Amino acid sequence: MGAYEDLMAFQRDTEALAQVAGRLSWDQETMMPRGAADQRSDERAAMEAVLHQRRTDPRIGEWLAAIAEDQLDPIAKAQLRHIRRSHERAVRVPESLASELARLISRAHVIWAEARADDDFNAFAPVLKEVIALRQQEGAALAAGGDVYDALLDDYEPGAKAADLKAMFGALRPRLVALREAVLSQPQPKGLDGTFDETGQMKLARMLARTFGYDLKRGRVDKAVHPFSSGSGDDVRITTRTMPLEPFNCFYSTIHEVGHACYEQNINPAYRLTPLGGGVSMGVHESQSRIYENQLGRSRAFTGWLYRQMRDTFGDFGIKDEDGFYAAVNSVRNGYIRTEADELQYNLHVLLRFDLERALISGDLLVDDLEAAWNDRFEADFGFAVDTPSNGVLQDVHWSAGLFGYFPTYSLGNVYAGCLYKALTTAVPDLDAQLVKGDTRAATSWLRDNLQQYGGLYTPRAVIEKASGGAPTEGPLLDYLEEKFSALYGV
Amino acid sequence: MGAYEDLMAFQRDTEALAQVAGRLSWDQETMMPRGAADQRSDERAAMEAVLHQRRTDPRIGEWLAAIAEDQLDPIAKAQLRHIRRSHERAVRVPESLASELARLISRAHVIWAEARADDDFNAFAPVLKEVIALRQQEGAALAAGGDVYDALLDDYEPGAKAADLKAMFGALRPRLVALREAVLSQPQPKGLDGTFDETGQMKLARMLARTFGYDLKRGRVDKAVHPFSSGSGDDVRITTRTMPLEPFNCFYSTIHEVGHACYEQNINPAYRLTPLGGGVSMGVHESQSRIYENQLGRSRAFTGWLYRQMRDTFGDFGIKDEDGFYAAVNSVRNGYIRTEADELQYNLHVLLRFDLERALISGDLLVDDLEAAWNDRFEADFGFAVDTPSNGVLQDVHWSAGLFGYFPTYSLGNVYAGCLYKALTTAVPDLDAQLVKGDTRAATSWLRDNLQQYGGLYTPRAVIEKASGGAPTEGPLLDYLEEKFSALYGV
Repeated sequence: MGAYEDLMAFQRDTEALAQVAGRLSWDQETMMPRGAADQRSDERAAMEAVLHQRRTDPRIGEWLAAIAEDQLDPIAKAQLRHIRRSHERAVRVPESLASELARLISRAHVIWAEARADDDFNAFAPVLKEVIALRQQEGAALAAGGDVYDALLDDYEPGAKAADLKAMFGALRPRLVALREAVLSQPQPKGLDGTFDETGQMKLARMLARTFGYDLKRGRVDKAVHPFSSGSGDDVRITTRTMPLEPFNCFYSTIHEVGHACYEQNINPAYRLTPLGGGVSMGVHESQSRIYENQLGRSRAFTGWLYRQMRDTFGDFGIKDEDGFYAAVNSVRNGYIRTEADELQYNLHVLLRFDLERALISGDLLVDDLEAAWNDRFEADFGFAVDTPSNGVLQDVHWSAGLFGYFPTYSLGNVYAGCLYKALTTAVPDLDAQLVKGDTRAATSWLRDNLQQYGGLYTPRAVIEKASGGAPTEGPLLDYLEEKFSALYGV
Repeated sequence: MGAYEDLMAFQRDTEALAQVAGRLSWDQETMMPRGAADQRSDERAAMEAVLHQRRTDPRIGEWLAAIAEDQLDPIAKAQLRHIRRSHERAVRVPESLASELARLISRAHVIWAEARADDDFNAFAPVLKEVIALRQQEGAALAAGGDVYDALLDDYEPGAKAADLKAMFGALRPRLVALREAVLSQPQPKGLDGTFDETGQMKLARMLARTFGYDLKRGRVDKAVHPFSSGSGDDVRITTRTMPLEPFNCFYSTIHEVGHACYEQNINPAYRLTPLGGGVSMGVHESQSRIYENQLGRSRAFTGWLYRQMRDTFGDFGIKDEDGFYAAVNSVRNGYIRTEADELQYNLHVLLRFDLERALISGDLLVDDLEAAWNDRFEADFGFAVDTPSNGVLQDVHWSAGLFGYFPTYSLGNVYAGCLYKALTTAVPDLDAQLVKGDTRAATSWLRDNLQQYGGLYTPRAVIEKASGGAPTEGPLLDYLEEKFSALYGV
C-alpha cells in the first residue's frame, strides 16, 4: 500500500473509535444505570486518551509528507485537508494542557451546576476564570500568532472569522430588536388547553421523524433530559423529551434533531468512516436542524397538516382552526432562556453571548464584570431586566465546558438556513402545496442533493454558496422573519 | 511512580476500554438499529485492534521485569499473575494468525447460520475445517510444547486440564444416563395452561432479579433474542426474553443471568477496572448462574413462593398447588437442544460436545465424520435418534465461533454449584424456610462473602475449594440430582 492508503486505513480506525466514543455519550444520556457514573468517567477518559494519541500520532505527519498530493483526485485532497488540519491542531496543543483542560472542565461543570441551582454567580466565577485562562492558552497555541478567538471558533466552524460574523450579526441585531418590540406590543395568540399524554407525544414525534425523512432502520428515537443527535453514517440516533403541557417542545425538538440526523444519514455512503463522512461544521449542521424545524416545520403550510395530526391524536385542545394553530406555534413571548426562545428572539440571545465571550477571551471583559455586562446587554435588547443569575449568565452549560467560539455557530446556522430557504423556494415553487399535505420530500431531497450528500467535501462556506447560489448574508433570514412575524402579528 | 504503578495505570485504561468494547456488544444485541450492522463490524474491529495492541504492548514486559515482586502484597501479586498470563498468551499468538482467525470467524458465523437454516451440515463442514485448523495452530502457539486442547481450555478456565475434566465427567455420565432413563419411564407432570402476557412476565422477571439481589441502580434489564449478562463493576446489564406459552423460560433465564450479574456486582469494589475486578473463570461464573437458577430457583421451597407470585400476576393457569408447580418447573422431557434441557439432562449434552471437540482438536475425529459421531453418541446417551442437523451437530454457535474449550466449563460450573450448594446448606441450615418466603439473602450473601467478593484474587479452583471446603468433585451434584429427581418422579 502507498502512504495515502496507509494513512486512510489508520484514519478509518480513528473514525470508527470516535463513533464508539460518541455512542458512549449517547448511552450515558439514555441507558446508563445511574450508579455507573464514576466508572463511566474512567471509560470515557480512556477512550479520549486513545483518540488523542491517534490524532497526534507522528506517523500521520510522515504519511502526509510522503503523499504526492497533486496526483490525487479532489475527494482524496479533501480527505487530506481534514486530516492535516486535525493533526496540526492536535499537535499544537501540548498534552499537559489538553489533560489539564479536561480535568478542569469536569470540575467546572459540577461547580457550574451547583452555582446555577444556588443562583450564585460568585460561586462559579473563580473556576470560570481558570477555564478562560486555559482556553486562552490553548487558543494562543492553536492561533500560532493569529487571532486567539478565531482559533477557538475554528474548532466549530473551520475557516470562519469573528470579524466577518461581527459584521453579519451587527446587521442582524437592530432589525431583530425592532421587530421584537413591534410584535410584543400586540396581543398574544391563544395557547393550547389541556394535557398531552406521553404515549401520544412519542407516537407523533416518531411520525414527524419519518415525515422529515429520518431513516429509522439506521437510527432510533429515545427520551433524554436534553434532546440531541448522535453518530454518523448508518447509526445516527436522536433523543427527545415530553412534558404534559408542552407538546410543541417535544415535536419541534424532534424535528430539530431530525434535521441534524438527516444531514448525517444523507452523506454519500462512500465517505462513511472517513473525515468526509460527518457534517462539515456546527454552523452548517445548525442550518439543517433550523430549516427543518423553523422554515419548514413552523410554516403555515406544515402546521396546517400538524394541526390535523394533533387533533386526530389528542382530540380538541382549544384551538379552533389552522390559522389559530399556526399563531400558537409561532407565538412570541418575553423570556430569559435561550433554549426556550422563539425563532424571532433566538438570535438576540446568541449575539449577546458572542459579544461577551469575545471580550472575555480578549481580556477586554473580566469575569468579575461579566454578570453586570450580561444584565445590561439583556435589558438593552429585550427591554426588561434579568431577575436571577440562573435566568441570566448562569443559564447555559457552554462556558463551564470551555466551549468559547461555539455560540456564534447557532446564529450562523440560522443565517445559512435563511439563504438555503430562499434558494429552496425558488427551486421548488409549489413547496407549500406539498407541506400542507405533510409531504416534505421535495424540500428534504433538495437539501440532500444540494448540501447534505457532500459531508466534508467542501468547506462550510463553499457548500452553503454552492447550495444557495451566492455568498451567505443575513438578508434572507431577516426578510423571512420580518415577513412572517409582521403578517402573524399585523405589524 | 514505580513500575508497578505505571503498569497498573496502563492496565486500568485497558480494562476500561474492554468494558467499552463489551458495552458495544450489549448495544448490538439490544439497541442497535438493524441497518448499522456493517458499520458496527468496523467499530468493533477497531476496538479489538486497540485492545490487542495494548495487551501485546512491549512496555508490559519491561514493567513486569522491573517490579520487585517479592515485596508486593498478595493482592498486587494476584494482579501481576493475571497481567503476566494475559500478556504472555497475547504475545505467543502472531498478529497475522489473530487477525486471520477474526476474519475467518466472521465468515464462519454467517455460513453456520445459513447451514443451520438449510439443515445442511455439508455446507458448514468446509469452513469448520478451516476454523479447527487455525485454532489448532493457535493452540499449539499457546501450548508451547504442552497439550493443545488444554491451551485452548485455559482461555476459559485458567489452570484446568482436560484429563481431570475427563475423569470427573466420566464419573458423571453413567449415573446421569441411568437417572434419565428411570425418570423418563415415569408419567409426566401436568404443564401450564394458557398464555402469559409480556408485561406480566417482564414485571415478574424484574421482581425476580431484585429478589436474588441484582442491584438495578448499577444494572438494567432489557430484552434480547438470547439472554446474556454483560459488563463488570458498576455497569452490569442483563437481558431476558419472553414467549407467551413459556413463562419459565423468561423467569429462569432471568435468574440465571442474575447469577452471572451478581457475581460481577459483588466483587470487592477496590478491584474495579483491574484484572481482579471480573469473574475469575467461565466455570466459576457458571457455578453462580446455575446455583441461582437451579439449586435455589428450582427448589421446592422457592418455587412455592414463585407459584404464589405467578398466581397473583396471571391468575389460574391450571396448576392446582405448589407441589404440582414444583413438578412442572422440574419436568424432564426428551429433547434435542442443549439450551432447552432440564437440570438432569443438561450435562449429558455438554459431555457429548466435550468428547467430540477434544477429538476434533487432536485430529482423532475428522469433520467429515463429525455428524455421524454426534448422532451415534446422542442416541447412546439419550435413547433416541437425532432427526435433523439443526437439532444435532448444527445447533450450537460455539464451534463456528472457534470456541473450542468452552463447552466443558458449563458442566464444570454445575459440578462447582453442587459443591457450593452442599456447603451452603451446611452453613445455612434453615435455607428452605427462607426461600419459601422468597428471601434469598442468606444464600446470596453466603455466596458473596465466600466466593463472589474475591473476583480474580484466587485461582478458579482455589476459590471453589475455599468456599466449599474441599477439592471439587462431581459427587455432591450427582447426589443432589438423584435425590431431587428420584423424589419428584418416584423412582
